[in-house]
Amino acid sequence: MVQESRLTFAVEKTLPGEDGIPRARAGKITLPGVDGKGREVLTPTFMPVGTQGTVKAVATRELREMKAQVILGNTYHLYLRPGHRRVERLGGLHKFMNWDGPILTDSGGFQVFSLAQLNKIDDEGVTFSSHIDGSKHRFTPELSMEIQGALGSDIVMAFDQCPPYPASEEQVLQAMRRTVAWAERGLRFELKPHQQRFGIVQGGLYEHLRVQSAKEITAMPYDGFAIGGLSIGETPELMQKMAYFTAPLLPADKPRYLMGVGRPEDLVEGVRAGIDLFDCVMPTRNARNGTLFTSRGKVNIKNAQYQDDAAPLDPECPCEACTQYSAAYLRHLFVAGEALSARLNSIHNLTYYLTIMQQMRQAILENRFDEWRAAFYTRRQKEKT
Amino acid sequence: MVQESRLTFAVEKTLPGEDGIPRARAGKITLPGVDGKGREVLTPTFMPVGTQGTVKAVATRELREMKAQVILGNTYHLYLRPGHRRVERLGGLHKFMNWDGPILTDSGGFQVFSLAQLNKIDDEGVTFSSHIDGSKHRFTPELSMEIQGALGSDIVMAFDQCPPYPASEEQVLQAMRRTVAWAERGLRFELKPHQQRFGIVQGGLYEHLRVQSAKEITAMPYDGFAIGGLSIGETPELMQKMAYFTAPLLPADKPRYLMGVGRPEDLVEGVRAGIDLFDCVMPTRNARNGTLFTSRGKVNIKNAQYQDDAAPLDPECPCEACTQYSAAYLRHLFVAGEALSARLNSIHNLTYYLTIMQQMRQAILENRFDEWRAAFYTRRQKEKT
Repeated sequence: MVQESRLTFAVEKTLPGEDGIPRARAGKITLPGVDGKGREVLTPTFMPVGTQGTVKAVATRELREMKAQVILGNTYHLYLRPGHRRVERLGGLHKFMNWDGPILTDSGGFQVFSLAQLNKIDDEGVTFSSHIDGSKHRFTPELSMEIQGALGSDIVMAFDQCPPYPASEEQVLQAMRRTVAWAERGLRFELKPHQQRFGIVQGGLYEHLRVQSAKEITAMPYDGFAIGGLSIGETPELMQKMAYFTAPLLPADKPRYLMGVGRPEDLVEGVRAGIDLFDCVMPTRNARNGTLFTSRGKVNIKNAQYQDDAAPLDPECPCEACTQYSAAYLRHLFVAGEALSARLNSIHNLTYYLTIMQQMRQAILENRFDEWRAAFYTRRQKEKT
Repeated sequence: MVQESRLTFAVEKTLPGEDGIPRARAGKITLPGVDGKGREVLTPTFMPVGTQGTVKAVATRELREMKAQVILGNTYHLYLRPGHRRVERLGGLHKFMNWDGPILTDSGGFQVFSLAQLNKIDDEGVTFSSHIDGSKHRFTPELSMEIQGALGSDIVMAFDQCPPYPASEEQVLQAMRRTVAWAERGLRFELKPHQQRFGIVQGGLYEHLRVQSAKEITAMPYDGFAIGGLSIGETPELMQKMAYFTAPLLPADKPRYLMGVGRPEDLVEGVRAGIDLFDCVMPTRNARNGTLFTSRGKVNIKNAQYQDDAAPLDPECPCEACTQYSAAYLRHLFVAGEALSARLNSIHNLTYYLTIMQQMRQAILENRFDEWRAAFYTRRQKEKT
């Protein structure tokens, strides 16, 4: 039965927002799984980013230990290197990177707009030059589906056009219309039986365009819906406001994904708005720069105050870095430029992100999300740095 | 009893060399252990190098999994950063780096001669400038003991002078005499109860000086003896020849350590000569450069021939890289510059080194070392690259 190979989403609990609209929710996504054995994803959750077939500096074994549920792969990067057909010949992305849990691939669109040298956008697709060797390529909605199909991800994102920030209403409108047309074209492309599709709502910071985009995109038979075009340069306040506005425009019975967001407080506000899924390079990128997230706020581990600190970085954190090493050791590794630094720091930051998501889920289930959120902000007043 | 806090070395089996002299041997070193609970080291074995309080790109958990028995710490590096007194305040090097197995620290001498800007050597000690910030420092035999005492390593190396290669007989003789005098001074410096001392034989490539150095150093109450001053630029053949000449000059009832050696074939020849312990940065350094050791010889993983290779790098290897990933994935990680590359490659190369050591130990115990050695070379004819 076709039905059985489709994503299902069971909402376990929904809390009303201050505006009375149903918002923060705990749910369970069930996916067919790459082996057909089914995979469950408890939401809300954060999805670590594995751009080039690896979450930077972290092994999949550690991702399993920190109970990461879904990881991201980047279509643009994997298409360029090692090539989606090569990944497919090698058994697909799951096997290639030794991760049999759910993988979500982006459409490649965002990277083409942000990373590559953009040559031309038209109604058919996007021509760009590789950031690796300058070679010319062209993405279309169909090719994006073909690449994601070859990679074999569990969740395939629609190919969209993300307008820059700032952008005029006209620009945003044009990108939005293209995104709708491309979403329709993508749907016609056949994927592997286990693969699910998420549509993307655009519309920039224009509420009426978000309404229109949401209306058109959610009318299509996608398995989940994402809010795109945020966290691209606007203030966190504007981002949070637009996510709060857009979340209820998406169907309550499908997963909602806020793309590329964000800081811990952005996750909290996103959950409050009614979002189920998040991804961001921030925890791993910051880890490599020595910026660590803790229950008491952000820490710069290269700070001299940690050089004699025999205590764990965050005594409440269950991660390898916090249970087996002192803050002084983490500082030493960072200052000495040791590879273990990026690894332990990344494990810590991802664990922190996953921990607060898990805590929010539990708080929602126990009808105490507002208290949890208030406590989250109170504790961060005592920032270490 | 003082006796109980000393290293013991039980030789389980010794095989005669072609020259009739007892040479290749399997043994068991028993150390008091940093916690006084005792540690056993089965020899021959290879000791991974953890220069700055971490074996580069590898966590101690993985070192335990690959059954590394002893790891090295570098006195010069840890003195400069984070500082030996700081490590001591933080509970010692074992606790600092989360490794409760045996640690051997070098004396700092070799790094001062090879890494730092050397300012002056005299009979009292060595003045040098830090390679990190150019600051001036002075090492003496007493300070080397003091640093290693503070670090709390299990095996403390005597502070020696390693003459460069090439060096005149007069230069080598002078360094040798200084090494003897420094060895005597070091012995008078009190260490922690669990710490053991190894003396170092110098003498360059001059056999009569090796004889003289061995005679003088082994007359002192050291717990084990090392052959220093090799693998510093001379050909592998000369190095192997001098190790073969020097090994039987060291007491048969004490561990023998060939410092800074070497390639897999150098380990084989070292064991054949009668050596018990080895260390070298080669497996980890080569790993970071993409050069991997396999049962069929050296492999350059960035080679295009691996880009579609779905097989493990070395089907006989039990390591994480070989059991969980394809050669194609290892190539992708290397080419993409991902942190996981150095990690998996380092785990693989160290596993390879430890595996051949363990195989040699078993072969010695079963009186078939020569056959093992012949097979080792035969299989390497089929080098992959």
